[in-house]
Amino acid sequence: MPNNRYKVAVIGAGFAGLSAAKELSKYDEFEICLIDRNNYHTFLPLLYQVAAAELESEDITSPLRGHFRKNRRVAVMHCRVAEIDHANKTLHTDGPDIRYDYLIMSMGSTTEFFGTPGAEKFAFTLKSLEDAVRLRSHILSCFEQASLYSDAHPTIYPNVSGQDKTDRQSALKHIIIIGGGPNGAEFAGALSELVRTSIYRDFPEFDRNSVQITLLEAAPNLLAGFPPLLAGYVRERLEKMDVTVKLNAAVTEIRKDGAVLKDGTFLPSETVVWTAGVRATDLAAETGFAAGKSGRIHVLPTLQIANRAEIFVAGDLSLPEGETVPPMVAPNAIQQGIHAARNLVRLVRKQELQPFVYHDKGSMAVVGRGAAAVRIGTRTLTGTIAWLVWLAVHLTYLVGFHNRLMVMFNWAWDYFVAERSVRLIFRSWKER
Amino acid sequence: MPNNRYKVAVIGAGFAGLSAAKELSKYDEFEICLIDRNNYHTFLPLLYQVAAAELESEDITSPLRGHFRKNRRVAVMHCRVAEIDHANKTLHTDGPDIRYDYLIMSMGSTTEFFGTPGAEKFAFTLKSLEDAVRLRSHILSCFEQASLYSDAHPTIYPNVSGQDKTDRQSALKHIIIIGGGPNGAEFAGALSELVRTSIYRDFPEFDRNSVQITLLEAAPNLLAGFPPLLAGYVRERLEKMDVTVKLNAAVTEIRKDGAVLKDGTFLPSETVVWTAGVRATDLAAETGFAAGKSGRIHVLPTLQIANRAEIFVAGDLSLPEGETVPPMVAPNAIQQGIHAARNLVRLVRKQELQPFVYHDKGSMAVVGRGAAAVRIGTRTLTGTIAWLVWLAVHLTYLVGFHNRLMVMFNWAWDYFVAERSVRLIFRSWKER
Repeated sequence: MPNNRYKVAVIGAGFAGLSAAKELSKYDEFEICLIDRNNYHTFLPLLYQVAAAELESEDITSPLRGHFRKNRRVAVMHCRVAEIDHANKTLHTDGPDIRYDYLIMSMGSTTEFFGTPGAEKFAFTLKSLEDAVRLRSHILSCFEQASLYSDAHPTIYPNVSGQDKTDRQSALKHIIIIGGGPNGAEFAGALSELVRTSIYRDFPEFDRNSVQITLLEAAPNLLAGFPPLLAGYVRERLEKMDVTVKLNAAVTEIRKDGAVLKDGTFLPSETVVWTAGVRATDLAAETGFAAGKSGRIHVLPTLQIANRAEIFVAGDLSLPEGETVPPMVAPNAIQQGIHAARNLVRLVRKQELQPFVYHDKGSMAVVGRGAAAVRIGTRTLTGTIAWLVWLAVHLTYLVGFHNRLMVMFNWAWDYFVAERSVRLIFRSWKER
Repeated sequence: MPNNRYKVAVIGAGFAGLSAAKELSKYDEFEICLIDRNNYHTFLPLLYQVAAAELESEDITSPLRGHFRKNRRVAVMHCRVAEIDHANKTLHTDGPDIRYDYLIMSMGSTTEFFGTPGAEKFAFTLKSLEDAVRLRSHILSCFEQASLYSDAHPTIYPNVSGQDKTDRQSALKHIIIIGGGPNGAEFAGALSELVRTSIYRDFPEFDRNSVQITLLEAAPNLLAGFPPLLAGYVRERLEKMDVTVKLNAAVTEIRKDGAVLKDGTFLPSETVVWTAGVRATDLAAETGFAAGKSGRIHVLPTLQIANRAEIFVAGDLSLPEGETVPPMVAPNAIQQGIHAARNLVRLVRKQELQPFVYHDKGSMAVVGRGAAAVRIGTRTLTGTIAWLVWLAVHLTYLVGFHNRLMVMFNWAWDYFVAERSVRLIFRSWKER
């Protein structure tokens, strides 16, 4: 059934790609092909809650095809793009080739280790659902291993003892989080709640306070870009929750058994989590388009690539010309996705394209129950009210009615029963 | 803190092991060590619903430590037993050695392929949570691949065509289930519902009825051991749901691309699921204890091994002397676990041990919404009433309050919205 619609390929179904595809699907001129290596969209701002055993995988994901059931002009393709051949307007994938008239690049970002030795090999990352489930399984496995060698049942396990045992126990019960941005800070808070509710109850053989959580930040403050008042609040709350916050603490090496700081200190730990940097995906770099900071691709204010009017870039990957650099956050990705789609409509209708302007609605970070830091415009909020705002915003944006109900249920359960229901170690994901 | 309690090791936290540990934990004489390679108990009778994307992993599992929080005499150990050194009353594990005074072996069963060529390599199994998630991901991936090469968007994917394409499509959209026992029949029914609700809606490019489900049974009837009336009902219902039921259809070879029947017929399929047999685990065989049918270990009517009074065997693994052979089902495992525990109490209290008698409460199989076959004693039920009985029994036995709520919620959602919420392809588990 050939037709005269414009063929639009959208690479990546994150916030930018999904928003762009949804917006374009409203217009009859287009036939859209939404390509992702996963068959689901991941609500990344809550990923750390899966890693902290607070939410289930299904809570923060929604099947892509579910979004486009009523629209046969959108084809969801579950494959990986291997090469963007923009001269021939063709994508080479691990499935069939895909020809396009217009392209929206929205592949998002990946972890940047800044060349830190050992980081890529030994650090856990927190950028995909698989990362989160792997990290959760690893952390719970460490506690199980620590329990195996604890002193709780000496008559049953007589063959381990001495200083080696104590050292190993400490390393198993120490989690290091590198990067004091919202992701790292929120994960530290969620882990502290996990430990103080479920873990100490599940492992009565652990001494209270024997589990250590360390948050390392290279800068002199947490939450770069947040008002100092909020950053201070978050730090204080985290410390009250027994998280050790170390500022000016750059990491120079990650080993299997811990992390080395700039001042030479070695922190033994079986679990080092890297949340300290992001950069554009390799696929973006291979296109040869001019890239700026973090490998983000330079685009015109219209989000088009200069001299390549048929290619738009949206989301983390996009670096529009202008005075301010939009942050690599979900609201920016959503706004850019919609903007790119609307500009494409203008393009095919031969109307004037509009420059993208990022609307900064604010920023927020949650530390634990009833404890969050929120900035709305220039206003700041902390504590329970901030937490309620955080809750409302995240439930509103969480994709899909079923997910919202489930997440509310899980959160309510955690809140009232103070108990995590998701504590499964999946073996397939245990080993790195 | 050494003490004078008897050390009991329980290997395996399935229905038998978990029941035994729970029963023993009521008595102050024992210090119990419950060992499992997973940190959770799996409600195996509903495993096929995870494979059919009906329930989430978390719905049918419960963390082991959650069961024993209030009882410090029970230690949960997350490790694998490598060797049972019964001469020295010691277990060698991939963690520490474990010494015991008494042992309960309840390692359950594993898949038996009866030496069918290719089966172990190419067939999917359905005996663990990992199996179920891997199978779900594979089936959904097959549909995604079939979609990639469909005719829905010829202008986008111009490079595939011809007979090869049609053949490959058919194989991707054909699921073969080997074994017409309750597991195979229930899985066939659940898959049919998945296909007829979510899949045809998610993949509008698929022709209605283009997805094929074939259930192969070597015997002349489905559901061996069920009253013929019920077996007939289940077969009829499955056929109404477009499942192709082939009786007297023994499989002689499984290949990557399909299954070969005894009469030489080759059925092309990318997904061959084996539910046709179970046998004792390898660890049981290595103990050298006398084994009977399916490798099950011969025990006295008291569930003890002859001349090894300190070792009890419970569950699928146990073959007690007597006229009737108890079936390898959950109710038998639960009854044996409790019985072994109570006999152990009698043993240490120097009371007379009691012979195990299996109380057959009945059997049941569910085919789909409002369609089940139930035998209670000699009474049989089919249809909606049977389905309600099935529902009540499974919710009652499902471990944990949180799970029950979640399962009810998921089932109600499926029932009223006719929509599966769990349709994620986990990449780590995609490849065999």
